[in-house]
Parts: sequence; C-alpha cells; structure tokens
Amino acid sequence: MSTGYSAAVPDDTALIDLLGALAYGELTAFDRLADDARMAPTLSGRAALCEMAAVEIGHYRLLANRIIDLGAIPEEAMAPFVPALDGFHEMTSPSTWLEGLVKAYVGDGLARDFYREIAALLDVETRDLILESLDSTAHSEFAVDRVRRAIAADHRVGGRLALWGRRLMGEALSQAQRVAADRDALTALLAGGVDRPGMDLAALGRMFNRLTERHAERMTELGLSA
Amino acid sequence: MSTGYSAAVPDDTALIDLLGALAYGELTAFDRLADDARMAPTLSGRAALCEMAAVEIGHYRLLANRIIDLGAIPEEAMAPFVPALDGFHEMTSPSTWLEGLVKAYVGDGLARDFYREIAALLDVETRDLILESLDSTAHSEFAVDRVRRAIAADHRVGGRLALWGRRLMGEALSQAQRVAADRDALTALLAGGVDRPGMDLAALGRMFNRLTERHAERMTELGLSA
Repeated sequence: MSTGYSAAVPDDTALIDLLGALAYGELTAFDRLADDARMAPTLSGRAALCEMAAVEIGHYRLLANRIIDLGAIPEEAMAPFVPALDGFHEMTSPSTWLEGLVKAYVGDGLARDFYREIAALLDVETRDLILESLDSTAHSEFAVDRVRRAIAADHRVGGRLALWGRRLMGEALSQAQRVAADRDALTALLAGGVDRPGMDLAALGRMFNRLTERHAERMTELGLSA
Repeated sequence: MSTGYSAAVPDDTALIDLLGALAYGELTAFDRLADDARMAPTLSGRAALCEMAAVEIGHYRLLANRIIDLGAIPEEAMAPFVPALDGFHEMTSPSTWLEGLVKAYVGDGLARDFYREIAALLDVETRDLILESLDSTAHSEFAVDRVRRAIAADHRVGGRLALWGRRLMGEALSQAQRVAADRDALTALLAGGVDRPGMDLAALGRMFNRLTERHAERMTELGLSA
C-alpha cells in the first residue's frame, strides 16, 4: 500500500481534462463573483465578494500551471467545459445580493467537496495541489453572517433563499451529468479501470450522497432548509 | 534627520483620506478589470486580466487594514472618493479589448507612480505599506505584448489607441483636480505645513511633470505616441 499511489495515476488525457474543468470552473467563478459584487448594498460587502473572487483566480493559476507542467495548454484543456460551466452560471444568475451570497457560499462549498472527492483518485502531486487550492475559508463567514441576519430581519427571505439553494444544487447536478455524458476520459477517471482503483456505480452513488449531505449542512448553516 | 520621520506624519484625517482614496481606487480597478476581462478574445487573455484584477484586491486589503489600524472604517474613508473614481471609470469605459489592455497598463502605471510620489510624504509605516502594494508587475508584460502585436498587424490601431491613451490621462487629471478641490485635508497633506515638509506649487508642478513623463514612457513602451 505504501507505493500504491502510482497505481492511481490516471492517463494524462483524463487528468488534463479534469484540471481543465476545474480551471475553467475557477475562471467563471471569479467572473461571476466579481459581477455579483456589484449588487452589494455596502462597499465592505462589495469588497468581501471581490476578495472571494480573487481567491478563485489564485486557484486558477495553480491549476493552469499544473496543466502546463503536464505539457498541455490551459486554454485547450478548458475549452470542452465552457458550455457546461457557462450554462450553469446562466441558469443561476442571482437577481439579488442575498441570492449572490448564497450562491457564493453554497457553490464554493460544493466545488470544494467535489475537489476533495476527486483528489482521492489522483496522483499525489496533483492531489496535493488540489488540496492546497482548498486552503482558504476566511470569506465564507461573511456570507453566512449576512444571510442569517437578513432572515432574522424578515423570515420570508428564508423561504425564497431555500428554494434558490435547491435550484443551485439541481443545476449543478444537471450540468455535471452533461459533462459526464460528453467526456469519456473524465468519466473513466471516476470509474477507474482494471489497473487503477475507481468508483463503481455504488461508490458513485455514495459520493453523490456525501455531496448532497454536505450541501444540506451548508444550507442549515445559512439558516435555510435544504 | 535620523528621527525626521515623525515630523512627516500628517494628521490622521489627511492620512485616512489618502488611504480611503487609494483603497477605493483599488476596489474600482478590480471591478473594471474584471469587467474588461470579458472582452478578451481568448481564455488566456481573460485569465491574464482577471489576474491583474486579483492583484488590486490584494492591495485593497492592505490599505483597508491600515485604515482599520488607524481607528477608522474603510467604508467611511472610501465614501468621499466614490464619485471621482466612478466618474473616471464611467468616462473611460473601454469599448474594445485593446482599449481595455491599454487602460489596464496605463492606468496601473499611473496609479503606481502617484503612489510612489505620495509615499515619500508619509510616515514610514504607511510608506512601507504603500511601497509593498506596488510590488507586483508580472502581468503588465502581457498587455504590452498584445498591444504591440495588434499594432504590428494593423497600424491604424496604433493611432486610435494613442488617442485613447491621451484621453485616459486627461480624465485622470480632471478627476484628480476634482478631488483636490473637495478634500482640504488631502490637499494640505500634499502641500505640507509649517511643521511638516510638503510640496509648494513648484514642487507640485514638478511632480505633475514626472507623472506625465512616465506616462509618455509607458505609451512608447506600448508602441503608441503619447
């Protein structure tokens, strides 16, 4: 088991695919957070969301550098995932500042959980890189605080934001499904192969359960029913 | 002279004013760079401008923390400068990707030069903070490279962008004038006082000359006539 890591190295096509998807995820997350920051009712709120955006672009740089290390071009690695990720953001464009905060908190949390699940399937170097890119959590407290305060001030807000949180999760899953159907190498990475551990259908189901459970915990954290 | 720094400490009103202006400058620069990034013709171009934006938000954090250390609230310190800085960006909203790049390079350079001039008038702690926030230059090469390439491909581009660069400088000066007329404490900081070195009218004129000379150098660097 001590040398078991090499057995877990997927072929580079799948790895570059995965890194490309994550990198474009960071780039769009930056873009949308920067955009949503404009809805902030205060300059400090705006700055908080801008700072969350800046963290994403730091992650982007780490992922893009790893793609380059593997001999690929970040632009080309990201291209296949543009439709699904743009689609997700188009379907979940917040119409209020609070919707933007819920999306920032819930979306960031979901992305982190997914990264952590995926990291376990990768070579040690990529795994460390991905875990490193999960390192900062400082700004999420801001979102939790503001959403809870808004619900305390007006309980109807909670009902609307709970619906919004469920929609975010639904759209994320539907776009993930779209990517899985399109990208054989990426799906194979998740499913494993004869020479490499992966997830069978039952394991994929358990991963899905863990992701939805943690999503529910975050909704509770925000004061929303999942 | 070795203890001369304390003589250069302006009153806190002026210092907080200055830090507020710089902080809001960073916050709007972030916002506009993030917005302009959307005009990028390629994902790597978009990422480059997003990374420039992220640098600005890092500077914002340094400046906001210093405002808090001085016992003030960043939001309140920034508020007086919102109209001038928003006005500058409204008057200089790029309509093409190349205009965005020229603005990023020229605007960033002008801000840095101004910071450096101002830093010389401040207490050593604030000075170090400001000089530290000038530390990163990696991304500006990208703008120079792309603008030069575009001019090489089509010389008419250079003429239009040269006009644009002059307009940027003109708007920056006109908004700076507006701030100087409004904010006595800030103007007094620049002008100095009986107990503190500052700039007389001739010195202000020389500073202005240095800023325009360096602006001209940057225009040349881009392949544009200033």
